Amino acid sequence: MKRGLVYDTAVERNPAALRTCRQYLHWVQRSVFEGDLSAAQHRSLFAALRQQLDLSYDSVRVYRMGSPHLVEVETLGAELGHPDSVL
Amino acid sequence: MKRGLVYDTAVERNPAALRTCRQYLHWVQRSVFEGDLSAAQHRSLFAALRQQLDLSYDSVRVYRMGSPHLVEVETLGAELGHPDSVL
Repeated sequence: MKRGLVYDTAVERNPAALRTCRQYLHWVQRSVFEGDLSAAQHRSLFAALRQQLDLSYDSVRVYRMGSPHLVEVETLGAELGHPDSVL
Repeated sequence: MKRGLVYDTAVERNPAALRTCRQYLHWVQRSVFEGDLSAAQHRSLFAALRQQLDLSYDSVRVYRMGSPHLVEVETLGAELGHPDSVL
């Protein structure tokens, strides 16, 4: 299923979160990712992030798009991410 | 219509972008907002951001949710934003 993910972590945990999210999703903006994840991939991504983050401080927010064709994305300014972002 | 907004700006333009987005949407995480916008509010938000940002460098990404009930939000870790986030 299509997903958007945003995270807000302490600066020292940012590189680890970036590396992990990049293994599963497309980077489209600082701390913002998009992509397709199976339920198993979703679980494994969350398991990896649980190991790396301080969940009392850091925050990860995932948007599961039930019907991605109903989600329009509009960019103002620079297109930072992958040219063929997945949404 | 329900919207998610993320921005990635040069640090010196961050406070202005934060102030502007807060006038229209709920802050849920650093540089991440959610909320309901009419077409007129959307235009006025973008007009304000155009004034404040360097669109050759900064990036704003808006997700228009055609059917928000099909968008599930899952948070891992701290719930940073407004308790009754809008999605």
